[in-house]
Amino acid sequence: MVQIDINCDMGESFGNWTMGRDEDVMPYISSANIAGGYHGGDPHVMRETVALAAEHDVGVGVHPGLPDKMGFGRRKMDATPEEVRDYVTYQFGALRAFCDQHGVTFQHVKPHGAMYSMLSESPDHARAVMEGILDVDDDLIYLATDMNIYEVTQEYDDLDAVFEGYVDLDYNPDRSLIVEQEKETRDPENVADRFVSIATEGTVEAVNGETLDVPADSICIHGDTPNAVDILEAIHDRIDEHDIELAPLHEIV
Amino acid sequence: MVQIDINCDMGESFGNWTMGRDEDVMPYISSANIAGGYHGGDPHVMRETVALAAEHDVGVGVHPGLPDKMGFGRRKMDATPEEVRDYVTYQFGALRAFCDQHGVTFQHVKPHGAMYSMLSESPDHARAVMEGILDVDDDLIYLATDMNIYEVTQEYDDLDAVFEGYVDLDYNPDRSLIVEQEKETRDPENVADRFVSIATEGTVEAVNGETLDVPADSICIHGDTPNAVDILEAIHDRIDEHDIELAPLHEIV
Amino acid sequence: MVQIDINCDMGESFGNWTMGRDEDVMPYISSANIAGGYHGGDPHVMRETVALAAEHDVGVGVHPGLPDKMGFGRRKMDATPEEVRDYVTYQFGALRAFCDQHGVTFQHVKPHGAMYSMLSESPDHARAVMEGILDVDDDLIYLATDMNIYEVTQEYDDLDAVFEGYVDLDYNPDRSLIVEQEKETRDPENVADRFVSIATEGTVEAVNGETLDVPADSICIHGDTPNAVDILEAIHDRIDEHDIELAPLHEIV
Amino acid sequence: MVQIDINCDMGESFGNWTMGRDEDVMPYISSANIAGGYHGGDPHVMRETVALAAEHDVGVGVHPGLPDKMGFGRRKMDATPEEVRDYVTYQFGALRAFCDQHGVTFQHVKPHGAMYSMLSESPDHARAVMEGILDVDDDLIYLATDMNIYEVTQEYDDLDAVFEGYVDLDYNPDRSLIVEQEKETRDPENVADRFVSIATEGTVEAVNGETLDVPADSICIHGDTPNAVDILEAIHDRIDEHDIELAPLHEIV
Repeated sequence: MVQIDINCDMGESFGNWTMGRDEDVMPYISSANIAGGYHGGDPHVMRETVALAAEHDVGVGVHPGLPDKMGFGRRKMDATPEEVRDYVTYQFGALRAFCDQHGVTFQHVKPHGAMYSMLSESPDHARAVMEGILDVDDDLIYLATDMNIYEVTQEYDDLDAVFEGYVDLDYNPDRSLIVEQEKETRDPENVADRFVSIATEGTVEAVNGETLDVPADSICIHGDTPNAVDILEAIHDRIDEHDIELAPLHEIV
Repeated sequence: MVQIDINCDMGESFGNWTMGRDEDVMPYISSANIAGGYHGGDPHVMRETVALAAEHDVGVGVHPGLPDKMGFGRRKMDATPEEVRDYVTYQFGALRAFCDQHGVTFQHVKPHGAMYSMLSESPDHARAVMEGILDVDDDLIYLATDMNIYEVTQEYDDLDAVFEGYVDLDYNPDRSLIVEQEKETRDPENVADRFVSIATEGTVEAVNGETLDVPADSICIHGDTPNAVDILEAIHDRIDEHDIELAPLHEIV
Repeated sequence: MVQIDINCDMGESFGNWTMGRDEDVMPYISSANIAGGYHGGDPHVMRETVALAAEHDVGVGVHPGLPDKMGFGRRKMDATPEEVRDYVTYQFGALRAFCDQHGVTFQHVKPHGAMYSMLSESPDHARAVMEGILDVDDDLIYLATDMNIYEVTQEYDDLDAVFEGYVDLDYNPDRSLIVEQEKETRDPENVADRFVSIATEGTVEAVNGETLDVPADSICIHGDTPNAVDILEAIHDRIDEHDIELAPLHEIV
Repeated sequence: MVQIDINCDMGESFGNWTMGRDEDVMPYISSANIAGGYHGGDPHVMRETVALAAEHDVGVGVHPGLPDKMGFGRRKMDATPEEVRDYVTYQFGALRAFCDQHGVTFQHVKPHGAMYSMLSESPDHARAVMEGILDVDDDLIYLATDMNIYEVTQEYDDLDAVFEGYVDLDYNPDRSLIVEQEKETRDPENVADRFVSIATEGTVEAVNGETLDVPADSICIHGDTPNAVDILEAIHDRIDEHDIELAPLHEIV
């Protein structure tokens, strides 16, 4: 039986500002990437999101961002590898304490937005972050958004890593993603087809029709796609049909 | 042999702004209360301060503050018990991750400034924070700045608490402290006398000459007193003379 | 012909987080209270909101808040009169520059949330803010949310002040407002009746049926009431029927 | 008689954290670049610094930074021209309000740190900022730190610009500056020689002995050079000897 994880960014509300539909989406996923209070989230949001994940037996990881709330962590900044490592450690530790409060095992790390891009472009930054994580806890899983990052994780024997694929965005032939300015509604059946294709074959069709290898053990779903819940329901129907097992990252590695 | 701890607030620099003389003071103390990034401190400062504490075998705790950097956490705000609890959990978890990175045992919690005052005035706030801490880790020590707080700690069997005394500030006859607007130089010998008196007798003289009970197992030293290092040297001389043993909180409880 | 202003809080989005329906509401109002970047708003949001107000010939004022984004400026804090005055000056100046960029006359000041409450409870705080405003520009109008504040404005010959009334909230017999935890849908006709009553008679019915004096020249509408646009349409129908003239604050004083 | 301005960055303290020696330096300069609350400064610091400048008849400008307090505005970030323009407008407006409060004419704009570098490298960013300034007030002066920036200012007929030179840092032969990691003590007489050379000849000697054109009408002095006051005194002695007149920017353009 094929096992696969569905991960989704969560806990990106801040104070009085709401973002996403965490309560609607949480029942359908197996791993939650929870914002750590830098690009989004705050202590109250983090605690509530951890509690919600616990209620649905969803694996919990941190989604650390750059210290740029006004830019939602989407603007690269000239921070050193050490600075980025310390930002990750800070946010990761903060979230882990809420996990401990709720009896939830802290599972994984998946950097957000521009921080992810910086790590993808600079192996020195990626290494600093990974070594920082390992120094705190070598049971953690690194959720790798692209091959650049995944390759750096392979330098560390102690670091478990999972490669993630995308089904609600289109792939270019070079396996880069076509990111939309504004999230659009997606055909749930088409997205679910891709899900099955990646889960069972490890491949997906690029925009030009070419077949790409996407050896992913986790699929990232964007909770802000307007019809995200419909998409997740279509995926769950396929999961049942194709005898795929949904499992959080820590059961997969 | 009498055991006593010396604690000092540390890691209150922020970004490019320096505060305190952490490197000069660290060699003389046994427990460091490290700012958690809200009223002061940042991830880089926290990591460096934990590393400095580790170098000097100083016990490490968190000094969490209100989210008010502009006011240095010194202005009370209408936050609920749950909000304050979550602020403590967040900062405490963040600091604990840096401790794990450096192989340092995370030891204690001592709220800063206006947060401390809020907990002292509202047992509901104090209870929320203490229960939040216990839910994360019941090996932690609560460093209690006044009797109001100390009494709330005694409601929890699982919570170790230590009462702290002051020697570089004057006591009113009701055991409240006379806090100066601007830190003044203090006579090191006089401060050291008080230290011995609290450590060995559990008493100190109030401003009116009355003898007060101060059953403290830890003495708080203010690193921003202009001659803090002279004071600490005078105290260390007395420690040797009076066969007092300096010990971090976790060896005392 | 009776003249009255309709004011509404605007520009409370922040970065990637959206709040309110500014574009839908702006066509119906005559004065916009625009957040100054402390409790909500940011430079980009401020500029866009000023441009939107200019497009609809809406008078622009600042809605300054406490430096507490996480609490949306709704938590009172122990700030001195001078601190609050400086926060107002800062935000007011920032917004005024965007007005100058768009050829819009800067019209008024209306403090937000807990800052408003602090000024209402402490005349010293209110005076500091009003004197700060007058020192910058004595053509400004102070939009006074309650009688405490209004009375302090009357101490200053140079300060124009307008008292505001509420129609989408209920009044207690002592003229205090019943604020709901969550905004509820309101009957547009009932709200419009109150609008006419305050505009033409200067009175409104309290929850107990008593008639209250509400000598208001501006009516505050909450843009986050779920059916705010329906309410505004009902009010505009009455404005036409009753020969009331909608006019921004600067045409009223 | 030669006229020249001395400018210095001021008001970079924040909350409880002090930076620089504004009170010692202000008597010797003619223009102050005051931080706008983003990289440093806060409303209280801004007001006090404006008051201090007013006391010494020093011209006041804003020193706007990126929204990165933790990095002191020294890290470039991927912000768009429009975002940077809005950050400048916001900070500039805020400072101008404090100037109005103190009867001080707001004089100039000089971007700080990484924001300056971004404008120097991207004419689109520089143009957006300059056009934003002109839309608010076309009497302002742009203080240009390098030739890239200065050239962009020349595209605007309405924008007065002044080029600044440096005397407490060394020039490379290409007229770029050698910036030290940590500020070092400088020989006051040597610095004063350079001051006279730039003021009277418009030239300075580069590190390799070559003579460079530095057609500056303002000299930037770093207040954090350890012996900044000694340097300023040496410069003032030369000013008297060489019949140079110290004048704020608005008297020079």
